[in-house]
This record gives sequence, C-alpha cells and structure tokens, in this order.
Amino acid sequence: MISKNISRIGILTGGGDAPGLNAVIRAVVKVAIQEYGLSVVGFLNGFSGLINNQSRELKESDVIGILPRGGTILGTTNRDNPFHFPMEKNGNIEYVDVSDRIHKNLKDLRIDALIIVGGDGTLAIAKKLHDSGIKLIGVPKTIDNDIYSTDQTFGFDTALTTATEAIDKLHTTAESHHRVMVLEVMGRNAGWIALSAGIAGGADVILIPEIPYNIELVVEKITQRTKQDKQFSIVVVAEGAAPIHGSVTIQRLVKDSFEPVRLGGISNKIAGEIEAITGKETRVTILGHLQRGGSPTPYDRILATRYGAAAINFLMAGKLGHMVCLNGTEIKAIMLDKVVGGQRRIPLDLELLNTARQLGISLGQKKTVID
Amino acid sequence: MISKNISRIGILTGGGDAPGLNAVIRAVVKVAIQEYGLSVVGFLNGFSGLINNQSRELKESDVIGILPRGGTILGTTNRDNPFHFPMEKNGNIEYVDVSDRIHKNLKDLRIDALIIVGGDGTLAIAKKLHDSGIKLIGVPKTIDNDIYSTDQTFGFDTALTTATEAIDKLHTTAESHHRVMVLEVMGRNAGWIALSAGIAGGADVILIPEIPYNIELVVEKITQRTKQDKQFSIVVVAEGAAPIHGSVTIQRLVKDSFEPVRLGGISNKIAGEIEAITGKETRVTILGHLQRGGSPTPYDRILATRYGAAAINFLMAGKLGHMVCLNGTEIKAIMLDKVVGGQRRIPLDLELLNTARQLGISLGQKKTVID
Amino acid sequence: MISKNISRIGILTGGGDAPGLNAVIRAVVKVAIQEYGLSVVGFLNGFSGLINNQSRELKESDVIGILPRGGTILGTTNRDNPFHFPMEKNGNIEYVDVSDRIHKNLKDLRIDALIIVGGDGTLAIAKKLHDSGIKLIGVPKTIDNDIYSTDQTFGFDTALTTATEAIDKLHTTAESHHRVMVLEVMGRNAGWIALSAGIAGGADVILIPEIPYNIELVVEKITQRTKQDKQFSIVVVAEGAAPIHGSVTIQRLVKDSFEPVRLGGISNKIAGEIEAITGKETRVTILGHLQRGGSPTPYDRILATRYGAAAINFLMAGKLGHMVCLNGTEIKAIMLDKVVGGQRRIPLDLELLNTARQLGISLGQKKTVID
Amino acid sequence: MISKNISRIGILTGGGDAPGLNAVIRAVVKVAIQEYGLSVVGFLNGFSGLINNQSRELKESDVIGILPRGGTILGTTNRDNPFHFPMEKNGNIEYVDVSDRIHKNLKDLRIDALIIVGGDGTLAIAKKLHDSGIKLIGVPKTIDNDIYSTDQTFGFDTALTTATEAIDKLHTTAESHHRVMVLEVMGRNAGWIALSAGIAGGADVILIPEIPYNIELVVEKITQRTKQDKQFSIVVVAEGAAPIHGSVTIQRLVKDSFEPVRLGGISNKIAGEIEAITGKETRVTILGHLQRGGSPTPYDRILATRYGAAAINFLMAGKLGHMVCLNGTEIKAIMLDKVVGGQRRIPLDLELLNTARQLGISLGQKKTVID
Repeated sequence: MISKNISRIGILTGGGDAPGLNAVIRAVVKVAIQEYGLSVVGFLNGFSGLINNQSRELKESDVIGILPRGGTILGTTNRDNPFHFPMEKNGNIEYVDVSDRIHKNLKDLRIDALIIVGGDGTLAIAKKLHDSGIKLIGVPKTIDNDIYSTDQTFGFDTALTTATEAIDKLHTTAESHHRVMVLEVMGRNAGWIALSAGIAGGADVILIPEIPYNIELVVEKITQRTKQDKQFSIVVVAEGAAPIHGSVTIQRLVKDSFEPVRLGGISNKIAGEIEAITGKETRVTILGHLQRGGSPTPYDRILATRYGAAAINFLMAGKLGHMVCLNGTEIKAIMLDKVVGGQRRIPLDLELLNTARQLGISLGQKKTVID
Repeated sequence: MISKNISRIGILTGGGDAPGLNAVIRAVVKVAIQEYGLSVVGFLNGFSGLINNQSRELKESDVIGILPRGGTILGTTNRDNPFHFPMEKNGNIEYVDVSDRIHKNLKDLRIDALIIVGGDGTLAIAKKLHDSGIKLIGVPKTIDNDIYSTDQTFGFDTALTTATEAIDKLHTTAESHHRVMVLEVMGRNAGWIALSAGIAGGADVILIPEIPYNIELVVEKITQRTKQDKQFSIVVVAEGAAPIHGSVTIQRLVKDSFEPVRLGGISNKIAGEIEAITGKETRVTILGHLQRGGSPTPYDRILATRYGAAAINFLMAGKLGHMVCLNGTEIKAIMLDKVVGGQRRIPLDLELLNTARQLGISLGQKKTVID
Repeated sequence: MISKNISRIGILTGGGDAPGLNAVIRAVVKVAIQEYGLSVVGFLNGFSGLINNQSRELKESDVIGILPRGGTILGTTNRDNPFHFPMEKNGNIEYVDVSDRIHKNLKDLRIDALIIVGGDGTLAIAKKLHDSGIKLIGVPKTIDNDIYSTDQTFGFDTALTTATEAIDKLHTTAESHHRVMVLEVMGRNAGWIALSAGIAGGADVILIPEIPYNIELVVEKITQRTKQDKQFSIVVVAEGAAPIHGSVTIQRLVKDSFEPVRLGGISNKIAGEIEAITGKETRVTILGHLQRGGSPTPYDRILATRYGAAAINFLMAGKLGHMVCLNGTEIKAIMLDKVVGGQRRIPLDLELLNTARQLGISLGQKKTVID
Repeated sequence: MISKNISRIGILTGGGDAPGLNAVIRAVVKVAIQEYGLSVVGFLNGFSGLINNQSRELKESDVIGILPRGGTILGTTNRDNPFHFPMEKNGNIEYVDVSDRIHKNLKDLRIDALIIVGGDGTLAIAKKLHDSGIKLIGVPKTIDNDIYSTDQTFGFDTALTTATEAIDKLHTTAESHHRVMVLEVMGRNAGWIALSAGIAGGADVILIPEIPYNIELVVEKITQRTKQDKQFSIVVVAEGAAPIHGSVTIQRLVKDSFEPVRLGGISNKIAGEIEAITGKETRVTILGHLQRGGSPTPYDRILATRYGAAAINFLMAGKLGHMVCLNGTEIKAIMLDKVVGGQRRIPLDLELLNTARQLGISLGQKKTVID
C-alpha cells in the first residue's frame, strides 16, 4: 500500500552532530525521488528552519558526494523548541508555543510530511508535532547510543572508532613512560562508548554512569598491575561516571548521586586521586568533540542509509508517528510514544559487562555489590 | 554449573587469515586463566600443530599487546586435514586418517578440551573430532561473513572498512578522470563484502554471486549516468560474481553457472566489456589479501573478544560440540551439526538488497527477474 | 616588484591524478584573489579545456572544503596535446598543431597568464606554450616523485602512505601463513615509492627500475630468512623493475633492458619464480590506482599549498616560463627548459639505498656489482 | 675508516614519547650487528637505566615487528639527570653528580660507546657525558620539531597528522553547528605543529608562541567570516601561544611575556574571550598526549631509520660527540656543542608564515607589526 496523499516531503536534522547525518539525508532524497517520485525540501538548522521558514529544495545533485562526509549539509542546532520558543516581550524573554508557524510554513510550501532526524529532545518535539496533526517519521540519532528501543544508532560506531584509536595511541606512551592514562569519552547517562572502547582498546579500568565507582577499587587494580610488573594502566571514563559514597546502597545511588559534573571534571578528579594515592604519573585526555566528527565508518554509513530509506518506505506505507529502529539485524518502526522519555542505559546483567569483568577489567565496583 | 573435568585446554586457529584472531586468543587465555583457573596450550599452524604435536604454553604475558594486531600469534594454515592427511607410501602420496595422533597428543599433554577457531572447512573437521570423542567448542571465522547460522563473523567489519576506503580513494580519481573504476573484493560464494562496501562507498553497480548479472544492464546504468552528465562510475564486483547466460532461467543458473574463475578473472572480463561497449576508460583494482590484514576495527575486536570469552563459558557449562554465534545482539551456542555444510548467502529478499535497488544501484539484473 | 600587466589568470591540471591537486587550486585562487586582486578562470580536463574553451570562473567560494579532498575539481586527462591534436580529415586521423586556438581562447577570455599543473608530459607542453609567447608558471605533479630538479612532488607522500599501510596489512597475514607476499607499487622509471615504502614497511626485498635484479639473489634472501626461522618475507616491487640478464653488464642493462611490461606483469613473474624455486606459497597484490586517490596527507597538503602560493608569487614577480620546485626546505623557481626531458631517478649512491642495504634488505643485486 | 676500538655499544631513549623511537632502535641494532658485527645493549628508562645499571642485550630478534609501533621498547623518562640526581641525605633530598656510576657501569658491561636518543634536555646531558670522556652520538627527538640545527625531527610528521585529522573532524561539526572550534596543540616554545596543522587543516586563525597575539584581531577575523556568511571558524592554538599586552613593543614581548600557562589554559582563555565578544558558541579541544602516540607515519619511520643507521655509521667513522641531523635532504652530523642551548623557533620571515598570511589566515597580529 502506497500513500496517495504524499507528494512532497521535508527533512530536518536536530540536536548534536553525529557522523552519518548526511548519509540519512542522501538516502531520503534518493529513495523519495527515484522510488516514489516525491519532491524533497530541506529545512535548515533543525527546528529553527521549520519555525522561521528557512529551507531549500533538495535534488539528487545536492546529495552527490556527501555520503562519506561528517556533519550535515542542512545544519543543526540543539536550540529552538517550537513549543518553548524564546520571544522578547516588553524587554523580557518569554517562552511561547509557535508550532502554528510550522503548520503554516508546511502548508505554504505544500509539504505533506516530515522526516525528523534527531536525539531524545528532537524526537520528543517530533512526537508533539505528530500529535498536532503533522504526518512524520522520526529517525534516531545519538553517538551515545542511548536512545530507547533501538539496538544501535548511527554515529556510535564512528565515535567508538575514534575513542579506540585514542586508546591505541595512549597505550604506547603509557607503556613507555610507566604512566596511568585517563581517557574521558562521551556518555552522560549511558556508558556505551566507554564500555565498548574500553574493551576494544584493552583498558584496565572502565567507569560508566550505570555503575557508581569506588576509587579504592580503581586504585587496587592499578596497584595489582604494578605488582605484576605492568607499570602502566589505561582508565576509560564516561563523562557521566560518578563515585559511590561510603555508606549508602547502590540502589539509592543510581537514582540520586548524579550531580552535574562539568566537562573533564570527573576525569581530572579521578586522575588526581590516582596520582595522590599511587604516586604514579597520571595524565588526562578528554576526547570531546572529536567523537562527533569525521567520516562515518562503513557500519554507520550503512545503518544511516538503511534508516533513511526505511523512513521513506514507512512514511509511504502509512506508518506515521513512528521512529525507525534497529532490532537485531532488522530495521523496524516503533511508535514515538513508546520511545520518548525512555533511555537505553547499560543493563547490569549485560553480557558485555560480564565479559569485561571476566577479562579482569575493573569496573570500579565489586561484582557482588553489582549483582 | 561448572565443568569439574576440565583443567587444561588447547586452542588452534585454522583457515585463512582474519583480523580478530588474536583478540579471540587473548580472550580465551584471559578468561580461562582468570575466571576458571585453567591452563592453556596453543597449537601452532592450525591442525598441523595438533597432528604433529607442535604447541606452546600460553600465559597471560603471551597475549599482552596482541588485541589490536592482525594475524594470529599461533600461525594458521588451510592445509592438514587430520582425516585426509597426505602420507608418502612407496613413492606415492596417499591420504589417510591420522586423527588418532590427535587423541594421543591431547592425552600426552593432558589437555581436556579444545577451542577451534576457523571457517567452514575447519569447523567441519572440528565436528568430526567432536564425534570421535574430543570435547571442544568451535568459533566461526571468515571475512566473507558466509558462515551459516551466525549473523556476523569477526574480520568482516575490517574487510568491509578496507574495501570502503578503497572505494573512497577510487572515487576521486574516477571523478577527476571521467573513468569507470571496477573494484574486485572477496566473496566467492556470498556477496556480503561487495554489497556492504558498495552501499557504504556509494557504488553505482554491485555484482554479487547470488545474482548472476547481465552485462547489458551494467552498461545501461553507466550510459544512463553519462546522460545525466555523471562522467564516472564505480563498479564493485565480488570475486564470485558470474554472468547470466541468455536463455536459461535464473533458478538453474544459481545452481549451475558457477565455474571457478581465477583471481581477477571476473573483474577484468567485466572491465573489458564495459570499455568495449561504452568507450569509457575503465580500470580494475583487485583488493586481494589487503582485506585479510590490518588492525581489526573496534567492532571486530569486541565481537572476537565476546566469542573468545563465550567459548570458554560454554565449554565450562558443558555445551560441547557447539559453535558460538551471534544472534541479533546476543552470543549464543549452536550445535556444530547444524552449521556444517550450510552457507550463509545473501537472501534475495534481504532488506539491504532492496535498499541498494531503491538508491538506484544496479545489481546487474532486473528486479522483476530477481523476484 | 609586482607585474602590472596581469589581472586575470587561468589554471589547469593535466596528467594522472595525484592527491594535492585541489590544494594547489585552492591556494592559487585564494592568493590570486586576496593578495593580488586577480580574477581566476579554471580550464576543465587539462589541455582539453584550453583547446576547446571549456572553463569556469573560480571564486573563493568554489574552493571551500576542497583542501582535504583527493582528485581535482577541474578534471584532468592525459590526452589532448595541443601540438599534436587528433583531427579527422577525410576519414583519417591526422595530428595537427592547434595551439593557435589556445592563444585565441586566452585572448577572448582576457586571460593574461596561466598556471599549469602537471607531470613530465604536461610540463613539456607548457614549455612549448611559453615559447609561443604565453606567460605561464608550471607546477610539478607526479606521485612517482620522478620530476627532474624538485626534491619532492605533492602526492608522493600520500602514495607512500597508502603503500606502507598495505605492507603493514600484508605483514600480519604473511607472518601468520608463512607466506611470501609480493606487493607491486607505482614507479615505471623510478623506484621512489618502492624504496621508501619498503623501508617504512620493513620489507625484506625491494626491487626498483634503477637496479636490474637477479632473481637468484631475491630467492637467496628468502631462503636465508627461512634458515633463521623467519617463515615469511615481504617483497616490494616497482612496476618498472626488470631482471638482469646473464652475461650483459649492468651499464648496458640500465640503458637497454626496459621493455614495457604490462601492469602486474613483473610482480606475477617474480612471484611465480619465487614459488617455483622455494616452494613457499607466494601471493601478489597490485596497489594500482589506490595510490593516486584519497585525502592528501598533511605533508602533501602543505607542499601543494606552498606550490600554489609560490606559483602566483613568482608569476607576479615576472618569473615566467619557470616551474616551482622544492629545494631542501625552500620553494624556488627553475626554468622549464632545464626540467623538460630530464628525469629524477634514484642515484645508485643515495644514502637511503645504502641504508636499505645496511638493514639487510636485498635489492636483488650484489653491492659490489652496483658500486 | 672504521673505528677499531668499538665492539659493543649501548643505546637509550630519553625525554617524552615520540613516534619513531622504536624505528631508531631497530635501525641501530640491525646496522650495528649486520654491518659492523657489534653487540648492542639497551638501557632501560632513559638515563635511569644507565645510572642504575638496568639494561638488556638487544639482538635482532628483539626488534622484529617494532618498526610500525609507537613508544619505545626501552622505556623512557624525563627524569634522572646524572649530573643532578636526587639523593636522600639525613632526611633531605640533595642533588648530586652520579656520572661516575655511568662510567663504572659502562666499564662493567664492557660498552665502548653510546647512542643517546632524546630532546633538548637529554642531549645537553649527552654533551656533558661526552665531555667526561664517554664516546657517544646523539639522535634528536621531539615532536615539537624545535631542536636547533636539524630541519626535522621524527615524530613531528605523526603529531602533525594527528593534529590535522583532528581539525578535519572538527571542521564538519563546526560547519554544521555554526560554531567556533578552538584546537590546542603541542608547542611550548615553537609553533611548528600549530602552523603546519593549521595550514594543512584549513584553519582560519593560527596562534603560535613566536607571535604574541592580539585577541581583537582574532575576533575581527571571525566577525569578518560571519559577514561573508561563513558561520564557523577554526582556531588552532599552540600551547605556548600568549597574548600581546597593550603598550609594550613586540620585541620586548617576545623576550619577556612568556609566563608559564597550565595545560589548556591558553585555549580556554581564548575561547572564553571569543564567545564573550562575538556571542558565537565556542568549543575547546585539547589534543594533549594523543600527539605523542600511535604508529609513526612512513615519513617518520624513514627519518628515524636513517637517523639510527647514520648514528652507527658516524660512530664507527669516529665522529664522536656529534648529533645526527637532517639538512635539506641529507643526513649530516653536527657537534653537540653547537646544538645545546639553542632552539629552533619559527623565524618571522619564514615562507610558510607568509603563505599562511596570503591565504587569509589570521596570525593574531598585523603583518606590519610583525615585519
């Protein structure tokens, strides 16, 4: 069944940068035009372009050569929520609902449906736009890989590759200099990059938001290695990792202990403590935005391409208000309602966590406490 | 339940090279020693070492630093089937069953069980050894990704990355010189590398063993691009791709048409035909062994590590005669009986094939014929 | 002194592809416009565009983002010599001098001078155009690094990197499989890529056009390694390498023995001989066009940028009929007369050759014969 | 002339890590053994091993496979100056001359001469050891490329590559998000990495220690780009860059203004000022130790190999107390006296600086002020 009512669509990319955004755009444009004969409009800079009617026609010639490139040709931004839009009123800023502008702009441009690519925040807005009557499909995007109900998001594999290459580089220096190297990677609420890169890079300690760490156990691992004449250690820390406090139980901690930490705060704190206790030279590297950039890996290019093609196919099949997702090896669609508000954190019984432990990697916490 | 009867294990790597073999060995050694207190022996050069009793003790210090390295520290070989072993007899070579030697060697070395890492051929031998009473677990390995009943094998993602980088490089030259570039990648029976790299690299034509191609349709795609003022084309060919012959049906062809083609035979044939018909300069690149080498990607390091750890865990849980495999996102175990003899080819209704078609990529065959 | 007579220039890129061409174009455009207030015209596809008047205005916006990209936005071709241009006459092809068309086109477009980027052939034509009264500057380009009178050309470092990465990849497989790996790299007349990549990759044998090789000495090296229990060898072969023949002297051979060999001819011949004599499995990889593509290395981007900027500076300083070149660490200008016809081959007393020998690398010839 | 008195040598690597150290060690070992029949001893962890007599015999088998690896198999350290060695005396630390221990250790081990690989500090100590009668050759090492009297040091090209790849990655995010990206690279006293990577990566602003910057000119460049509708900018900052202060002259500043700045201090300061003045989102990335690690580029592997081979050749030719150096394309030897105390900073009339300016890159200072 092909939707008869859709002949012109819009697309926008919202939220932080992620390698693969251009691959999604390219697939959407190619499949929309070649397979369904649609025309495509790109809105600039996330919801900003949708609100302020900044857009450009996207033809096949516009997407030539963009597949291997990071970034997004449409621009993106984390700001400009149409349901909470800042307006000056009598010298003050007030936040108002300007979603009617979107309805008007879509009507003016004769656009029948939208493809909205973005993370948690962007998809939550997409859901509200869908509720307000706009036909749309969401495409999940986050390098943190923490979007609920999809097994993987594009951008994650590229970020993982950047982080693993960094560990490879730090390894040789750590070994030559008998140092402890602390690498901070992205992951505010979920430690997927830290856990995966840590295993791929052969880290000795991996600290993730899901497991509040005990600095004494971190130090114990480093000291134990020194005793085995391994004079260096690699510690991978997710930016959202946090210490456990003495007496309270983990259950409470998981809920309560996450005070906001500024960028690099946690890795510098950990490095300082390690150096103070062990006396070993300890150095910090913070990967930061390097993880968001660069040419997407083949895995990410393929996943992003599949997402883009599937978004159009689901749209034309009438699966409105859905988000495309990866389920095992298959691309499926799930209702946006079920996605919004959830978060995909590392489950404490994940096989990969257990593998890390079996390899002798310290997770900053005793197994018995975790179980 | 932990097996009480296993205190010393052996491991060997057989068949062609694949990035990630060292990661499997490392995980096996670490988990066997740290988690279960086992001792580990590595047999050298595949079954050869098992037959001729060439081995060395593997301690944790032997696997330091091998995680990011291609190849296998144990050596490997495609030869030396213990059930069909060449022996000189009266000046002639006769093939005999020498599997009793293996039983004797294992007994002499007091080895209770084996981890056997390899492809189709290696796993078929593993199954026969299991049938003969040897406790063992198989670990699948092939960069072609065509082992039956596992969603992915380690080495594939690295080979895919090498192939995609090659397409990226060929792209700029093809574009600058208005050329057709033909890239031949591995895949004798299955076109996973060609299909995946072709999509990731933005190829215009992808030819795989599963779909016998019609050279006229290949040329048609190139000519159509020229008309759209796209003066270059990228053609990705699996080494096992083969042309369809005029009158016969595809069903018959898929079964019968695969005569062995020597390396580079098919890509040179196709390039010659394209140049002859279109008059466009056409150049061939054959990736060959480059696809088997290099540091494994993070994806492959993680998958190989999971396989290695799972192999030990399944062994100790008594799941003998099984092969570890990836099922969606989970590592599972499957009876070797069910694996041997099968092959994982690209199903003609695969979503990724359809995506390729929707992107306008020619598969060398009309959709209607394929369906 | 700044030339008062130049206000509009043209640029073209001729010959084979080389990473860094876009960096030259970008530097020429930026410096011409920003520093001297010139306007710039790009001719398409080498001399073809100059002859057939196919060009486009180049503004700064046209060169945004091209620095890291391989290829050339102007297109290139090895064909279309204006002094030997194929014309149909009475059904036959005759070759005629059409350089007057170029004079006319430049006049029509009010172009005062040209920047011509290319290799041997392109620069020889540039010299003749200069002799015919056209103001121009040449920029050397060849990944083979064999242009006379410049220490290095852009593209070489990128090709060297691609070749070295290939050796790194082959190394692990060679080692795991106890194989001999033969890698054929570019270099028809000069062995710079082979020698440099061979040293950077740790090759055991390096065969270059400048030193006709003795296959017995190649085999001797491999056999000697086997005796030392090094069961694998890496042989790097320049495409222009050639065997020495029994009785004749090297002096004669260097001049006479270079019969044209088809692509891959020499490496397959060598591999066949090695396998036949040693009985060791030997595999061939031919890098081919991969060496011409890809994002230029930082070294090449910088050298190409310096060349582009210097070309404009020399042009405006009145140094017409010159080619920019690298001399030690400095960019200089040399008369095209002195460049054309010459060739930069590896001198037999080069320190790097001696280093190779001291490291134990076989060059396929005895030192005494070479000296 | 070959030195008859040397039959056994020692080698050590001192100072910070640099890609290529292993390539030097490998070349020294291979050439010493194969060409001159020497034996080789490696001292561990820089001068520490020489003082405390920690060493190991180095045979050819010890250097197999280390060519492509970062780090140093001998270990290294910035500490332990034999002429200023910390000793506890009555509960206090006193610094004493322990160089007699070195003489004794060399005598005990029957070592006739040393190869000392290191930076400024290491080479200054080498000079004093030479003055005290120890036969030795120095090999320069610094990724900053600021050692006096050599055109290039190994490690620099690899650090440059890491920095350029980082700029490439930041570019796409900067462009998609309309951000200013500030990248801090190594270079405390000299801006070679910043200048080179900035040009190779297409930076808009490059700030180096040699040119005290005016923040207003930095902002002016960014504002000017915004006016041209280029909504993003890339600023590359050497860690030793420093602002100019209002009234004082540059001449004084170059001498006096360099107060020590803690890691990341300068880039965070600049980013804060840019964001405050322009209102544009500005993000900082500090590459740090990533620049010291990783597999050396082919350029660095070759340079390091040439240095290692030349060190032995010069040693055996009796050129004692010299340092090997690169002069244009040639490896030469220079007296350590002439090297120590000097520093290779970017000369203000360097062609590459002028090229940067001609490309429109802001150096944070007006040309007229610099000249």
